[in-house]
Amino acid sequence: MIATKSSPIDQLCAQLDEIVLIDPHSHINPHAAASKNLGDILGYHYFTELAHSAGMPREVIEAPGITAKEKVGRIVEGLAHLDNTIQVKWLIELCDRFFGFQDDRLTPDNWEALYDHSEKLMSAPDWEQTILQKSRLEAVFLTNDFDDPLTGFDTKKYIPCLRTDDLVFHLQKPEVRQRLAKATGFDCATPAKLIHAIGQLFTHFVSHGAKACAISLPPDFEPTPVSHVDAEGPLRAAYAGHMLTTEQSQVLSRFVFWTIAEFCSEHHLPFDLMIGVNRRVYESGVYQGQDLFDQRVSLYQYRRLFNAFPRVKFPISVLAHASNMELVSYAWIFPNVIANGHWWYSNIPAFIEPDCRSRLEAIPRNKNIGYYSDMYKLEFGWPKFQMYRRVLAKVLFEDFVVGRHWSEERAVELGRQILRGNVETIFSGAC
Amino acid sequence: MIATKSSPIDQLCAQLDEIVLIDPHSHINPHAAASKNLGDILGYHYFTELAHSAGMPREVIEAPGITAKEKVGRIVEGLAHLDNTIQVKWLIELCDRFFGFQDDRLTPDNWEALYDHSEKLMSAPDWEQTILQKSRLEAVFLTNDFDDPLTGFDTKKYIPCLRTDDLVFHLQKPEVRQRLAKATGFDCATPAKLIHAIGQLFTHFVSHGAKACAISLPPDFEPTPVSHVDAEGPLRAAYAGHMLTTEQSQVLSRFVFWTIAEFCSEHHLPFDLMIGVNRRVYESGVYQGQDLFDQRVSLYQYRRLFNAFPRVKFPISVLAHASNMELVSYAWIFPNVIANGHWWYSNIPAFIEPDCRSRLEAIPRNKNIGYYSDMYKLEFGWPKFQMYRRVLAKVLFEDFVVGRHWSEERAVELGRQILRGNVETIFSGAC
Amino acid sequence: MIATKSSPIDQLCAQLDEIVLIDPHSHINPHAAASKNLGDILGYHYFTELAHSAGMPREVIEAPGITAKEKVGRIVEGLAHLDNTIQVKWLIELCDRFFGFQDDRLTPDNWEALYDHSEKLMSAPDWEQTILQKSRLEAVFLTNDFDDPLTGFDTKKYIPCLRTDDLVFHLQKPEVRQRLAKATGFDCATPAKLIHAIGQLFTHFVSHGAKACAISLPPDFEPTPVSHVDAEGPLRAAYAGHMLTTEQSQVLSRFVFWTIAEFCSEHHLPFDLMIGVNRRVYESGVYQGQDLFDQRVSLYQYRRLFNAFPRVKFPISVLAHASNMELVSYAWIFPNVIANGHWWYSNIPAFIEPDCRSRLEAIPRNKNIGYYSDMYKLEFGWPKFQMYRRVLAKVLFEDFVVGRHWSEERAVELGRQILRGNVETIFSGAC
Repeated sequence: MIATKSSPIDQLCAQLDEIVLIDPHSHINPHAAASKNLGDILGYHYFTELAHSAGMPREVIEAPGITAKEKVGRIVEGLAHLDNTIQVKWLIELCDRFFGFQDDRLTPDNWEALYDHSEKLMSAPDWEQTILQKSRLEAVFLTNDFDDPLTGFDTKKYIPCLRTDDLVFHLQKPEVRQRLAKATGFDCATPAKLIHAIGQLFTHFVSHGAKACAISLPPDFEPTPVSHVDAEGPLRAAYAGHMLTTEQSQVLSRFVFWTIAEFCSEHHLPFDLMIGVNRRVYESGVYQGQDLFDQRVSLYQYRRLFNAFPRVKFPISVLAHASNMELVSYAWIFPNVIANGHWWYSNIPAFIEPDCRSRLEAIPRNKNIGYYSDMYKLEFGWPKFQMYRRVLAKVLFEDFVVGRHWSEERAVELGRQILRGNVETIFSGAC
Repeated sequence: MIATKSSPIDQLCAQLDEIVLIDPHSHINPHAAASKNLGDILGYHYFTELAHSAGMPREVIEAPGITAKEKVGRIVEGLAHLDNTIQVKWLIELCDRFFGFQDDRLTPDNWEALYDHSEKLMSAPDWEQTILQKSRLEAVFLTNDFDDPLTGFDTKKYIPCLRTDDLVFHLQKPEVRQRLAKATGFDCATPAKLIHAIGQLFTHFVSHGAKACAISLPPDFEPTPVSHVDAEGPLRAAYAGHMLTTEQSQVLSRFVFWTIAEFCSEHHLPFDLMIGVNRRVYESGVYQGQDLFDQRVSLYQYRRLFNAFPRVKFPISVLAHASNMELVSYAWIFPNVIANGHWWYSNIPAFIEPDCRSRLEAIPRNKNIGYYSDMYKLEFGWPKFQMYRRVLAKVLFEDFVVGRHWSEERAVELGRQILRGNVETIFSGAC
Repeated sequence: MIATKSSPIDQLCAQLDEIVLIDPHSHINPHAAASKNLGDILGYHYFTELAHSAGMPREVIEAPGITAKEKVGRIVEGLAHLDNTIQVKWLIELCDRFFGFQDDRLTPDNWEALYDHSEKLMSAPDWEQTILQKSRLEAVFLTNDFDDPLTGFDTKKYIPCLRTDDLVFHLQKPEVRQRLAKATGFDCATPAKLIHAIGQLFTHFVSHGAKACAISLPPDFEPTPVSHVDAEGPLRAAYAGHMLTTEQSQVLSRFVFWTIAEFCSEHHLPFDLMIGVNRRVYESGVYQGQDLFDQRVSLYQYRRLFNAFPRVKFPISVLAHASNMELVSYAWIFPNVIANGHWWYSNIPAFIEPDCRSRLEAIPRNKNIGYYSDMYKLEFGWPKFQMYRRVLAKVLFEDFVVGRHWSEERAVELGRQILRGNVETIFSGAC
């Protein structure tokens, strides 16, 4: 489909671009939300891991003690191998939009001027606000550690979300147990105590405006209820500092996970499930460039959970593109299953387009959250959402305006609900 | 691809629309084939399950004692959340075609007039014949219970098909054993007797014009031959009313399945395999809205079957879109494997288009059955086939007329074989 | 997308067609690289297996003692059922290009004239060279048995590649052990001796210009290191002629595979992994038409291998289309994982297009080998590459020229790297 400047798809996209957004999932640090220099931007794992994959040694990229500027200079050396990637397109588009960068490539010849120019812009005291406005971002969901004090920032703009990976998968680590004890004042060596402590975390988060709970899950995870009796042994072993067997770890993870789901139900908090990641598959990879997946996973593993917690909304992201059809079908049947964005390795137009198309064809429109940025720095919100908007505009135009003779207004209204409306209704706040 | 009223794709589609069809798989009740009112139409599980998924309580939808009209009024309340779905497009298109409905949405404001108007139309004594004619349906395959007497209807128009799910998977249920005993006059507590009884069912069906045998199968089913000795214990246990172990159930299912395949071979009946459904995954779902699937399934599980029965044609439907490539490849290699339609959760254009494209590129044209309606009421034949025809016309135009410089006539001829011709040659009748 | 004669996609494709190629994977016999008659061409397994699948008995196709001409006459009888397939499009296109065939179908009426005419052309002494030139093929990789003497041909034009399937999976066969003994002069009944022998094979291949090692792997294979102690029992059992248990076979396969990877590392030879084939699934199939696959496979099974051999480049082909997303993701993260072509059942445009699109969007451009022919006879190089070039031109045009406003020159340059440049840099030769 040719989409020239004046194409109807572009026009539709321009209308979608007007919509003020709430980004329902990011890794923004609310105390340093915007970038300070190009180092923060080129340091995004997408660029370091791709440069590494294309041949640059990790030692070059992650050399200790190099300045941000040196690091940028090094990564730019690797960009020539990556100029085809959609990730470099994000980079060029954000440099154009926010720094007035006019070239179509970032090269060893032009990067330094951009570095210096952009650093000046980013040092403006209102840079963070400028980015939010230029990106039409009204609010951004965070992903907070369970022991985050959640103070010192505006929780209406940066909305807390309780990340529970550490609780579910890492209670065996002494530092996690110590952080939990410090955050709650509890020794949690029995199931009852652990439940009580987790309840405290929920109270803390909810009282600070949290609107979601979230977790990323490996492909072989299968949630089931676990009795206190069954959980007690593994939990005590963990607190005694013993090495757990695979079986014990699994029992403990399932127990904590199910407990968290119960508190989500009690507090009416949606529970974001990000399904399918295997951590540290490539241990010699760069920082945050070590995780991959195994596509042999099914939402069928979650059937007991979906049945047991009808009042908990589960916005679900799947890492494997092959999982999208299950997500469409489970969201089509289960009232509490919601399709949520396009995660990580599936976050490229080649996968977003078929996924978006099928979701719009078969999921009730009020259960489809189009996109989240997953960003670490605010500057990436605009180009990532823009990538999605282009795909969405194409699908709305081809399938609805042309395929079903919808008016453009009606199509844009559907886009608005997917991009913004559902974020509000689904994450409407705890009670 | 823009397909305006006068587009070449539309023109090609219009030619496909002229083809008189034999629908090779449906759930039509031949004694009440057409709808009596909008309740029969809005009661289709696609609308109730989607309305339920979008937030309407099951108790509202399935309240005991409500009239058909009340039920329609309630479901219409939920349609606003579903107007994006392809299923609602079926609804609007059939209301337009059969009832002269002019609006583009069915709403709380306009449904009642449509209800009353359409009820009058449907009360005409020739309504069933009108629908068949307007839908260009010459004949429709049924899905009959094994104890169906197959009398009281025209088996040339409504073609019997022996559904074998109960025999293969539910012999442990007393009512199934009783129905079998009643249908055959047999106590079937030994393998030999059971085989004899199943043989009687085949004789009954074939003598009443049955042209296929069919079954839906869970993702973990793997057919293998089972000896009488191995089957005897589980079968006797079932007939003694004992609870079978998982292992025993599996052995018994495999034994019955293999026996049925043998009778298909003897009677030259195609055996429709509908692969991949898990039943009652969501037990609180509405009627017929409880089943889902696990994409981790492979046609490799069926290799022994395909090898053992070279004379049995196996028209295969797969529930998971991810299984389509295996279906294409197995149909490309095995003479007795035939690609059959687009089933249930994979029956939306987003999945049909890539599936259709690959099947046309790599399966011999005489082994590709384009589509079946799977309908419960005749009114759905036209909009469902129409959805498929649009996709087929697009693929034929783009890949064959443009991509291979075929004439439009040649492309339509291929479409005719896929839509109609292969149904006749593949289900040519028992002998 | 309409691609008429003068479309911009066609123009882009024409430029790609100018690129002189090195085909990085084929099954060419360098002593008989070109066909002698249409029997060599119609005898390609794609035509025999599809004709067989469409209904022609194997006994007809593979009747002993029939002449090449008789065989062609028989297969042509089956082509009417296959004229929709992309494989028959290869046939028609090569007959047009190389033999001046003007019809759009090969039929019982016109095949004999083509047979006779083409046989004359193919008898020209420079036919092989003619085909290479018309196909713009500069060099072609072979797939050589481990005991191939590699003499009597120009290894610059026909580049040796060590095929290791027999060593890894068939050491239990006496003939394989005998061939190994003959090739190396070694009895290999101990791990140390076997390693030494394999080392000899590598030395032999490298000294004859081999530029790659290759293997095809079943879906359930998972490479791990195996100690000499653990390998010794299974190896001795194999050499004693005992039947190995499944477990023993697996240990032995893993030991040999890991050993080969170690020699690849030592010799800086890329190791082509062709992942996912199950052999002899359909034992009654025609020659080379018996293999299929099980889509339940993951590159996660190869994580230890990728981590253990950072210096070995692994150009990877996946048989299941569903595996493409993992290949994209693993190539995006692991520096030594390279996406390689479109293999066998996934080698049709319906799968190539989405696969190509995602690879261009997310894999560094220097790690993406667009295509290889996999051909047995030189005549198939052109139509198979042409099929790929059309898809590549479409993706380059739509996603890069239109979608990213790249100049046509820049898009063609990316195409050149994918089609040719990366073959040179990745298979740059042992050292």
